[in-house]
Amino acid sequence: MDRKKVLYQHGTLAMLVPGLFTGTQTVAELLKHGDTGIGTLTGLNGELIIVDGVCYQANAAGQIRQVDGHELVPFANSHYLQDTLASKIGAVGQDKLWTFLEAQIPSKNLFYGVRLTGTFKKVKTRAVKEQTKPFPTLKQTASQQQEFSRENVDGTVIGYFAPELYGRTAVPGFHLHFLSADHSFGGHILELSSTATKLYLQEFSSLELHLPSENTDFRKKKLSGNLIQEIKDAES
Amino acid sequence: MDRKKVLYQHGTLAMLVPGLFTGTQTVAELLKHGDTGIGTLTGLNGELIIVDGVCYQANAAGQIRQVDGHELVPFANSHYLQDTLASKIGAVGQDKLWTFLEAQIPSKNLFYGVRLTGTFKKVKTRAVKEQTKPFPTLKQTASQQQEFSRENVDGTVIGYFAPELYGRTAVPGFHLHFLSADHSFGGHILELSSTATKLYLQEFSSLELHLPSENTDFRKKKLSGNLIQEIKDAES
Repeated sequence: MDRKKVLYQHGTLAMLVPGLFTGTQTVAELLKHGDTGIGTLTGLNGELIIVDGVCYQANAAGQIRQVDGHELVPFANSHYLQDTLASKIGAVGQDKLWTFLEAQIPSKNLFYGVRLTGTFKKVKTRAVKEQTKPFPTLKQTASQQQEFSRENVDGTVIGYFAPELYGRTAVPGFHLHFLSADHSFGGHILELSSTATKLYLQEFSSLELHLPSENTDFRKKKLSGNLIQEIKDAES
Repeated sequence: MDRKKVLYQHGTLAMLVPGLFTGTQTVAELLKHGDTGIGTLTGLNGELIIVDGVCYQANAAGQIRQVDGHELVPFANSHYLQDTLASKIGAVGQDKLWTFLEAQIPSKNLFYGVRLTGTFKKVKTRAVKEQTKPFPTLKQTASQQQEFSRENVDGTVIGYFAPELYGRTAVPGFHLHFLSADHSFGGHILELSSTATKLYLQEFSSLELHLPSENTDFRKKKLSGNLIQEIKDAES
Protein backbone atom coordinates (compact mmCIF):
# COMPACT_ATOMS: atom_id res chain seq x y z
CA MET A 1 0.00 0.00 0.00
CA ASP A 2 1.10 3.53 -0.79
CA ARG A 3 1.72 4.86 2.71
CA LYS A 4 1.19 8.50 1.76
CA LYS A 5 -2.48 7.62 1.14
CA VAL A 6 -3.04 6.17 4.62
CA LEU A 7 -4.35 8.04 7.65
CA TYR A 8 -3.64 6.20 10.89
CA GLN A 9 -5.83 6.64 13.94
CA HIS A 10 -5.60 5.21 17.44
CA GLY A 11 -8.89 5.26 19.34
CA THR A 12 -12.33 6.34 18.22
CA LEU A 13 -13.97 9.68 18.93
CA ALA A 14 -17.12 8.15 20.44
CA MET A 15 -15.14 6.73 23.37
CA LEU A 16 -14.15 10.22 24.51
CA VAL A 17 -17.78 11.27 24.94
CA PRO A 18 -18.45 9.11 28.05
CA GLY A 19 -14.94 9.79 29.42
CA LEU A 20 -12.65 7.00 28.22
CA PHE A 21 -9.51 9.15 28.53
CA THR A 22 -6.95 6.49 29.52
CA GLY A 23 -3.91 6.45 27.24
CA THR A 24 -3.70 3.13 25.41
CA GLN A 25 -0.86 3.64 22.92
CA THR A 26 2.64 5.09 23.29
CA VAL A 27 3.65 8.14 21.32
CA ALA A 28 6.58 6.05 20.02
CA GLU A 29 4.10 3.57 18.47
CA LEU A 30 2.00 6.42 17.05
CA LEU A 31 5.15 7.81 15.38
CA LYS A 32 5.68 4.46 13.62
CA HIS A 33 2.59 5.30 11.57
CA GLY A 34 3.52 8.83 10.58
CA ASP A 35 5.75 11.87 11.05
CA THR A 36 2.85 14.34 11.21
CA GLY A 37 -0.30 14.38 13.31
CA ILE A 38 -2.37 15.50 16.26
CA GLY A 39 -3.79 13.95 19.44
CA THR A 40 -4.01 14.18 23.20
CA LEU A 41 -2.44 12.47 26.23
CA THR A 42 -3.99 10.44 29.07
CA GLY A 43 -6.69 12.46 30.82
CA LEU A 44 -7.09 14.72 27.73
CA ASN A 45 -3.91 16.36 29.00
CA GLY A 46 -3.26 19.09 26.47
CA GLU A 47 -3.19 19.17 22.70
CA LEU A 48 -0.56 17.26 20.73
CA ILE A 49 0.93 18.32 17.43
CA ILE A 50 3.45 16.19 15.56
CA VAL A 51 5.73 18.09 13.18
CA ASP A 52 8.68 16.49 11.34
CA GLY A 53 8.44 13.37 13.50
CA VAL A 54 8.59 15.30 16.79
CA CYS A 55 5.59 15.35 19.13
CA TYR A 56 4.82 18.54 21.07
CA GLN A 57 2.21 19.17 23.73
CA ALA A 58 0.42 22.49 24.36
CA ASN A 59 -0.87 22.19 27.91
CA ALA A 60 -3.56 24.08 29.85
CA ALA A 61 -0.88 26.20 31.53
CA GLY A 62 -0.01 27.64 28.13
CA GLN A 63 3.30 25.83 27.87
CA ILE A 64 4.75 23.88 24.95
CA ARG A 65 7.04 20.93 25.60
CA GLN A 66 8.38 17.97 23.67
CA VAL A 67 6.59 14.72 24.50
CA ASP A 68 8.53 11.54 25.34
CA GLY A 69 7.97 8.37 23.36
CA HIS A 70 6.71 6.42 26.39
CA GLU A 71 3.82 8.83 27.08
CA LEU A 72 0.37 7.49 26.25
CA VAL A 73 -2.40 8.69 23.94
CA PRO A 74 -6.10 7.72 24.18
CA PHE A 75 -6.87 9.31 20.81
CA ALA A 76 -4.48 10.47 18.08
CA ASN A 77 -3.83 10.53 14.34
CA SER A 78 -0.67 10.36 12.31
CA HIS A 79 0.36 10.14 8.66
CA TYR A 80 3.49 10.44 6.55
CA LEU A 81 3.58 13.98 5.21
CA GLN A 82 3.58 14.16 1.45
CA ASP A 83 1.13 16.96 0.79
CA THR A 84 0.83 19.41 -2.09
CA LEU A 85 0.21 23.14 -2.22
CA ALA A 86 -3.52 23.72 -2.64
CA SER A 87 -3.65 27.50 -2.28
CA LYS A 88 -1.84 30.66 -1.27
CA ILE A 89 -4.00 32.67 1.11
CA GLY A 90 -3.70 36.39 1.73
CA ALA A 91 -5.50 38.48 4.36
CA VAL A 92 -8.63 36.46 5.11
CA GLY A 93 -10.70 36.76 8.30
CA GLN A 94 -12.02 33.97 10.51
CA ASP A 95 -15.45 33.33 8.95
CA LYS A 96 -14.31 33.58 5.35
CA LEU A 97 -11.25 31.43 6.02
CA TRP A 98 -13.26 28.42 7.25
CA THR A 99 -15.61 28.71 4.27
CA PHE A 100 -12.59 28.96 1.98
CA LEU A 101 -10.89 25.94 3.54
CA GLU A 102 -14.01 23.82 3.18
CA ALA A 103 -14.30 24.82 -0.48
CA GLN A 104 -10.72 23.61 -1.05
CA ILE A 105 -11.54 20.02 -0.02
CA PRO A 106 -11.81 18.11 -3.33
CA SER A 107 -14.22 15.41 -2.09
CA LYS A 108 -16.33 15.58 1.06
CA ASN A 109 -16.33 11.76 1.12
CA LEU A 110 -12.61 11.35 1.76
CA PHE A 111 -10.18 12.08 4.60
CA TYR A 112 -7.52 14.77 4.09
CA GLY A 113 -4.38 15.88 5.84
CA VAL A 114 -4.47 19.66 6.22
CA ARG A 115 -1.45 21.90 6.79
CA LEU A 116 -1.17 25.68 6.78
CA THR A 117 2.05 27.61 7.23
CA GLY A 118 2.90 31.30 7.29
CA THR A 119 1.77 34.37 9.19
CA PHE A 120 -1.61 34.27 10.90
CA LYS A 121 -3.50 37.45 11.80
CA LYS A 122 -5.03 35.82 14.84
CA VAL A 123 -5.05 32.33 16.29
CA LYS A 124 -7.26 31.40 19.23
CA THR A 125 -6.64 28.01 20.78
CA ARG A 126 -7.77 25.91 23.69
CA ALA A 127 -6.03 23.26 25.72
CA VAL A 128 -7.91 20.91 28.02
CA LYS A 129 -6.60 20.55 31.58
CA GLU A 130 -5.47 17.07 32.57
CA GLN A 131 -8.43 15.12 33.94
CA THR A 132 -8.03 12.50 36.64
CA LYS A 133 -10.00 9.34 37.43
CA PRO A 134 -12.92 8.99 37.74
CA PHE A 135 -12.94 10.79 34.39
CA PRO A 136 -15.79 13.21 33.65
CA THR A 137 -17.65 13.20 30.32
CA LEU A 138 -16.18 15.06 27.35
CA LYS A 139 -18.82 17.76 27.73
CA GLN A 140 -17.88 18.34 31.36
CA THR A 141 -14.24 18.94 30.41
CA ALA A 142 -15.27 22.00 28.38
CA SER A 143 -15.39 24.04 31.58
CA GLN A 144 -11.83 22.83 32.37
CA GLN A 145 -10.27 24.17 29.20
CA GLN A 146 -8.01 27.18 28.97
CA GLU A 147 -8.12 29.49 25.98
CA PHE A 148 -5.20 31.37 24.51
CA SER A 149 -4.79 33.76 21.62
CA ARG A 150 -2.00 35.39 19.65
CA GLU A 151 -1.99 38.00 16.90
CA ASN A 152 0.45 38.29 14.00
CA VAL A 153 1.94 34.93 14.73
CA ASP A 154 4.10 32.74 12.50
CA GLY A 155 3.48 29.03 12.76
CA THR A 156 2.04 25.79 11.49
CA VAL A 157 -1.47 24.36 11.49
CA ILE A 158 -1.64 20.55 11.36
CA GLY A 159 -4.81 18.51 11.27
CA TYR A 160 -7.45 16.73 9.27
CA PHE A 161 -10.67 16.97 7.35
CA ALA A 162 -13.02 14.02 7.98
CA PRO A 163 -16.36 13.35 6.24
CA GLU A 164 -19.49 13.93 8.34
CA LEU A 165 -20.28 10.24 7.76
CA TYR A 166 -17.47 9.17 10.11
CA GLY A 167 -18.50 11.66 12.81
CA ARG A 168 -18.48 9.03 15.56
CA THR A 169 -15.01 7.81 14.62
CA ALA A 170 -13.23 11.08 13.85
CA VAL A 171 -14.00 14.76 14.45
CA PRO A 172 -16.33 15.59 11.53
CA GLY A 173 -15.11 18.42 9.29
CA PHE A 174 -11.86 20.14 10.28
CA HIS A 175 -9.87 19.22 13.37
CA LEU A 176 -6.78 21.42 13.51
CA HIS A 177 -4.01 22.11 16.02
CA PHE A 178 -1.47 24.96 16.00
CA LEU A 179 2.19 25.36 16.92
CA SER A 180 3.91 28.74 16.67
CA ALA A 181 7.27 28.95 14.90
CA ASP A 182 8.97 29.96 18.16
CA HIS A 183 7.29 27.05 20.03
CA SER A 184 5.81 29.41 22.62
CA PHE A 185 2.14 29.03 21.69
CA GLY A 186 -0.20 26.31 20.45
CA GLY A 187 -3.28 24.17 21.01
CA HIS A 188 -6.57 23.06 19.48
CA ILE A 189 -7.70 25.78 17.06
CA LEU A 190 -10.92 27.62 17.87
CA GLU A 191 -10.41 30.65 15.63
CA LEU A 192 -8.03 31.32 12.76
CA SER A 193 -7.38 34.18 10.37
CA SER A 194 -4.67 34.58 7.78
CA THR A 195 -2.27 37.37 6.91
CA ALA A 196 -0.15 35.46 4.39
CA THR A 197 -0.33 31.67 4.52
CA LYS A 198 -0.15 28.57 2.35
CA LEU A 199 -2.58 25.66 2.44
CA TYR A 200 -1.30 22.15 1.73
CA LEU A 201 -3.56 19.11 1.36
CA GLN A 202 -2.92 15.37 1.31
CA GLU A 203 -5.71 13.08 0.14
CA PHE A 204 -6.03 9.70 1.84
CA SER A 205 -7.72 6.66 0.33
CA SER A 206 -7.42 4.58 3.50
CA LEU A 207 -8.19 5.03 7.17
CA GLU A 208 -6.39 2.58 9.42
CA LEU A 209 -8.48 2.61 12.56
CA HIS A 210 -6.72 0.99 15.51
CA LEU A 211 -8.91 0.39 18.57
CA PRO A 212 -7.66 -0.15 22.16
CA SER A 213 -8.80 -3.78 22.15
CA GLU A 214 -6.77 -4.66 25.25
CA ASN A 215 -8.31 -1.95 27.45
CA THR A 216 -11.01 -3.39 29.73
CA ASP A 217 -12.90 -0.11 30.14
CA PHE A 218 -13.04 0.34 26.37
CA ARG A 219 -14.20 -3.24 25.82
CA LYS A 220 -17.07 -2.88 28.28
CA LYS A 221 -18.31 0.69 27.86
CA LYS A 222 -21.61 1.25 26.10
CA LEU A 223 -20.88 3.63 23.23
CA SER A 224 -24.10 4.95 21.81
CA GLY A 225 -26.66 7.73 22.12
CA ASN A 226 -26.72 10.94 20.16
CA LEU A 227 -22.96 11.03 19.90
CA ILE A 228 -22.66 13.37 16.98
CA GLN A 229 -24.50 16.18 18.73
CA GLU A 230 -22.59 15.60 21.96
CA ILE A 231 -19.31 15.65 20.07
CA LYS A 232 -20.26 18.84 18.26
CA ASP A 233 -21.17 20.49 21.57
CA ALA A 234 -17.92 19.40 23.15
CA GLU A 235 -15.72 20.30 20.18
CA SER A 236 -17.18 23.75 19.61
CA MET B 1 1.18 -5.11 12.52
CA ASP B 2 -0.20 -8.50 13.38
CA ARG B 3 -2.22 -9.24 10.25
CA LYS B 4 -4.64 -11.61 11.98
CA LYS B 5 -5.96 -8.62 13.95
CA VAL B 6 -6.79 -6.56 10.84
CA LEU B 7 -10.14 -6.45 9.06
CA TYR B 8 -9.85 -5.04 5.56
CA GLN B 9 -12.76 -3.30 3.86
CA HIS B 10 -13.14 -1.81 0.41
CA GLY B 11 -15.95 0.73 0.14
CA THR B 12 -18.26 2.09 2.80
CA LEU B 13 -21.82 0.97 3.48
CA ALA B 14 -23.30 4.46 3.20
CA MET B 15 -22.39 4.66 -0.49
CA LEU B 16 -24.66 1.71 -1.30
CA VAL B 17 -27.73 3.51 0.06
CA PRO B 18 -28.00 6.06 -2.80
CA GLY B 19 -26.95 3.45 -5.38
CA LEU B 20 -23.16 3.66 -5.81
CA PHE B 21 -22.88 0.06 -7.02
CA THR B 22 -19.98 0.38 -9.48
CA GLY B 23 -17.16 -2.05 -8.77
CA THR B 24 -13.98 -0.18 -7.84
CA GLN B 25 -11.57 -2.92 -6.76
CA THR B 26 -10.64 -6.25 -8.33
CA VAL B 27 -11.27 -9.47 -6.46
CA ALA B 28 -7.54 -10.21 -6.94
CA GLU B 29 -6.68 -7.05 -4.95
CA LEU B 30 -9.25 -7.90 -2.28
CA LEU B 31 -7.62 -11.32 -1.90
CA LYS B 32 -4.26 -9.63 -1.18
CA HIS B 33 -5.81 -8.50 2.12
CA GLY B 34 -7.22 -11.82 3.24
CA ASP B 35 -8.16 -15.41 2.41
CA THR B 36 -11.64 -15.18 3.95
CA GLY B 37 -14.44 -12.68 3.47
CA ILE B 38 -17.71 -11.54 1.93
CA GLY B 39 -18.85 -8.89 -0.54
CA THR B 40 -20.75 -8.23 -3.75
CA LEU B 41 -19.94 -7.53 -7.42
CA THR B 42 -20.69 -4.51 -9.64
CA GLY B 43 -24.43 -3.80 -9.67
CA LEU B 44 -24.86 -5.71 -6.36
CA ASN B 45 -24.65 -8.80 -8.54
CA GLY B 46 -25.04 -11.65 -6.07
CA GLU B 47 -23.44 -12.44 -2.76
CA LEU B 48 -19.72 -13.22 -2.49
CA ILE B 49 -18.14 -15.58 0.00
CA ILE B 50 -14.40 -16.11 0.20
CA VAL B 51 -13.30 -19.45 1.67
CA ASP B 52 -9.67 -20.64 1.75
CA GLY B 53 -8.62 -17.87 -0.63
CA VAL B 54 -11.25 -18.75 -3.27
CA CYS B 55 -14.06 -16.33 -4.04
CA TYR B 56 -17.52 -17.73 -4.85
CA GLN B 57 -20.66 -15.92 -5.98
CA ALA B 58 -24.24 -16.95 -5.16
CA ASN B 59 -26.34 -15.22 -7.81
CA ALA B 60 -30.04 -14.39 -8.05
CA ALA B 61 -30.60 -17.41 -10.30
CA GLY B 62 -29.61 -19.63 -7.39
CA GLN B 63 -26.28 -20.64 -8.91
CA ILE B 64 -22.85 -20.78 -7.28
CA ARG B 65 -19.75 -20.10 -9.36
CA GLN B 66 -16.11 -19.27 -8.78
CA VAL B 67 -15.34 -15.58 -9.34
CA ASP B 68 -12.38 -14.48 -11.48
CA GLY B 69 -9.70 -12.19 -10.07
CA HIS B 70 -10.44 -9.42 -12.58
CA GLU B 71 -14.10 -9.03 -11.52
CA LEU B 72 -14.89 -5.90 -9.55
CA VAL B 73 -16.37 -5.28 -6.09
CA PRO B 74 -18.02 -2.04 -4.90
CA PHE B 75 -18.11 -3.26 -1.29
CA ALA B 76 -16.33 -6.21 0.31
CA ASN B 77 -14.38 -7.36 3.36
CA SER B 78 -11.51 -9.76 3.78
CA HIS B 79 -9.18 -10.96 6.53
CA TYR B 80 -6.62 -13.68 7.12
CA LEU B 81 -8.41 -16.49 8.89
CA GLN B 82 -6.92 -17.31 12.28
CA ASP B 83 -10.00 -17.75 14.41
CA THR B 84 -10.61 -19.83 17.52
CA LEU B 85 -13.46 -22.09 18.57
CA ALA B 86 -15.91 -20.06 20.65
CA SER B 87 -18.70 -22.57 21.08
CA LYS B 88 -20.19 -25.87 19.97
CA ILE B 89 -23.87 -25.40 19.17
CA GLY B 90 -26.49 -28.14 19.17
CA ALA B 91 -30.08 -27.94 17.98
CA VAL B 92 -30.91 -24.24 18.29
CA GLY B 93 -33.72 -22.47 16.40
CA GLN B 94 -33.54 -19.18 14.50
CA ASP B 95 -34.50 -16.70 17.23
CA LYS B 96 -32.45 -18.29 19.98
CA LEU B 97 -29.45 -18.71 17.69
CA TRP B 98 -29.13 -14.98 16.91
CA THR B 99 -29.47 -14.13 20.61
CA PHE B 100 -26.86 -16.77 21.41
CA LEU B 101 -24.44 -15.49 18.73
CA GLU B 102 -24.72 -11.93 20.01
CA ALA B 103 -24.01 -13.10 23.56
CA GLN B 104 -20.80 -14.78 22.31
CA ILE B 105 -19.31 -11.48 21.10
CA PRO B 106 -16.74 -10.56 23.80
CA SER B 107 -16.87 -6.77 23.24
CA LYS B 108 -19.60 -4.89 21.39
CA ASN B 109 -17.03 -2.15 20.63
CA LEU B 110 -14.80 -4.28 18.40
CA PHE B 111 -15.06 -5.93 14.98
CA TYR B 112 -15.08 -9.74 14.78
CA GLY B 113 -14.70 -12.33 12.09
CA VAL B 114 -17.50 -14.90 12.47
CA ARG B 115 -17.46 -18.44 11.09
CA LEU B 116 -19.84 -21.32 11.66
CA THR B 117 -19.44 -24.80 10.24
CA GLY B 118 -21.47 -27.98 10.50
CA THR B 119 -25.03 -29.07 9.85
CA PHE B 120 -27.71 -26.39 9.77
CA LYS B 121 -31.36 -27.22 10.36
CA LYS B 122 -32.48 -24.45 8.02
CA VAL B 123 -30.74 -21.68 6.12
CA LYS B 124 -32.69 -19.00 4.29
CA THR B 125 -30.66 -16.73 2.03
CA ARG B 126 -31.16 -13.95 -0.45
CA ALA B 127 -29.19 -12.87 -3.48
CA VAL B 128 -29.69 -9.51 -5.14
CA LYS B 129 -30.18 -9.48 -8.91
CA GLU B 130 -27.57 -7.57 -10.90
CA GLN B 131 -28.60 -3.93 -11.21
CA THR B 132 -27.75 -1.86 -14.24
CA LYS B 133 -27.11 1.87 -14.68
CA PRO B 134 -28.74 4.14 -13.77
CA PHE B 135 -28.55 2.27 -10.47
CA PRO B 136 -31.58 2.35 -8.15
CA THR B 137 -31.24 3.00 -4.41
CA LEU B 138 -30.37 0.15 -2.07
CA LYS B 139 -33.94 0.09 -0.79
CA GLN B 140 -35.33 -0.29 -4.32
CA THR B 141 -33.16 -3.37 -4.90
CA ALA B 142 -34.98 -5.22 -2.12
CA SER B 143 -37.80 -6.01 -4.53
CA GLN B 144 -35.19 -7.41 -6.96
CA GLN B 145 -33.81 -10.01 -4.58
CA GLN B 146 -34.42 -13.72 -4.80
CA GLU B 147 -34.77 -15.83 -1.68
CA PHE B 148 -33.68 -19.44 -1.28
CA SER B 149 -33.83 -21.94 1.53
CA ARG B 150 -32.45 -25.34 2.38
CA GLU B 151 -33.01 -27.70 5.28
CA ASN B 152 -30.51 -30.09 6.88
CA VAL B 153 -27.66 -28.56 4.96
CA ASP B 154 -23.94 -28.89 5.63
CA GLY B 155 -21.91 -25.79 4.99
CA THR B 156 -20.03 -22.72 6.15
CA VAL B 157 -21.15 -19.32 7.38
CA ILE B 158 -18.61 -16.52 6.88
CA GLY B 159 -19.07 -12.93 7.94
CA TYR B 160 -18.59 -10.24 10.53
CA PHE B 161 -19.86 -8.56 13.64
CA ALA B 162 -19.51 -4.77 13.55
CA PRO B 163 -20.30 -2.34 16.41
CA GLU B 164 -23.47 -0.24 15.99
CA LEU B 165 -21.19 2.82 16.17
CA TYR B 166 -19.80 2.11 12.70
CA GLY B 167 -23.24 1.53 11.18
CA ARG B 168 -22.61 3.89 8.27
CA THR B 169 -19.33 2.21 7.40
CA ALA B 170 -20.15 -1.46 7.92
CA VAL B 171 -23.36 -3.44 8.37
CA PRO B 172 -24.06 -2.98 12.11
CA GLY B 173 -24.30 -6.22 14.08
CA PHE B 174 -23.95 -9.49 12.14
CA HIS B 175 -23.46 -9.63 8.37
CA LEU B 176 -23.18 -13.27 7.33
CA HIS B 177 -23.06 -15.19 4.05
CA PHE B 178 -23.48 -18.93 3.49
CA LEU B 179 -21.96 -21.55 1.20
CA SER B 180 -23.13 -25.16 1.30
CA ALA B 181 -20.50 -27.90 1.47
CA ASP B 182 -21.55 -29.19 -1.96
CA HIS B 183 -21.36 -25.64 -3.43
CA SER B 184 -24.96 -25.83 -4.67
CA PHE B 185 -26.52 -23.24 -2.35
CA GLY B 186 -25.53 -19.95 -0.73
CA GLY B 187 -26.17 -16.23 -0.31
CA HIS B 188 -26.72 -13.48 2.25
CA ILE B 189 -28.19 -15.11 5.37
CA LEU B 190 -31.73 -14.08 6.34
CA GLU B 191 -32.52 -16.97 8.68
CA LEU B 192 -30.32 -19.59 10.33
CA SER B 193 -30.87 -22.49 12.68
CA SER B 194 -28.41 -25.10 13.89
CA THR B 195 -28.50 -28.87 14.14
CA ALA B 196 -24.86 -29.41 15.12
CA THR B 197 -22.45 -26.57 14.38
CA LYS B 198 -19.32 -24.88 15.67
CA LEU B 199 -18.82 -21.13 16.11
CA TYR B 200 -15.37 -19.65 15.55
CA LEU B 201 -14.51 -16.01 16.29
CA GLN B 202 -11.55 -13.79 15.38
CA GLU B 203 -11.18 -10.48 17.21
CA PHE B 204 -9.79 -7.55 15.21
CA SER B 205 -8.08 -4.52 16.73
CA SER B 206 -7.84 -2.65 13.41
CA LEU B 207 -10.17 -1.79 10.58
CA GLU B 208 -8.40 -0.86 7.36
CA LEU B 209 -11.02 1.11 5.49
CA HIS B 210 -10.14 1.61 1.83
CA LEU B 211 -12.33 4.08 -0.06
CA PRO B 212 -12.76 4.26 -3.87
CA SER B 213 -10.95 7.62 -4.04
CA GLU B 214 -10.49 7.42 -7.81
CA ASN B 215 -14.18 6.93 -8.62
CA THR B 216 -15.79 10.19 -9.73
CA ASP B 217 -19.32 9.23 -8.70
CA PHE B 218 -18.10 8.31 -5.21
CA ARG B 219 -16.12 11.55 -4.88
CA LYS B 220 -19.14 13.70 -5.78
CA LYS B 221 -22.13 11.91 -4.22
CA LYS B 222 -23.71 13.45 -1.15
CA LEU B 223 -23.66 10.75 1.52
CA SER B 224 -25.86 11.74 4.40
CA GLY B 225 -29.42 11.55 5.74
CA ASN B 226 -30.79 8.95 8.08
CA LEU B 227 -28.52 6.29 6.72
CA ILE B 228 -28.69 3.88 9.61
CA GLN B 229 -32.45 3.45 9.33
CA GLU B 230 -32.28 3.14 5.55
CA ILE B 231 -29.55 0.54 5.84
CA LYS B 232 -31.53 -1.42 8.42
CA ASP B 233 -34.58 -1.36 6.17
CA ALA B 234 -32.58 -2.52 3.17
CA GLU B 235 -30.62 -5.20 5.04
CA SER B 236 -33.58 -6.77 6.80
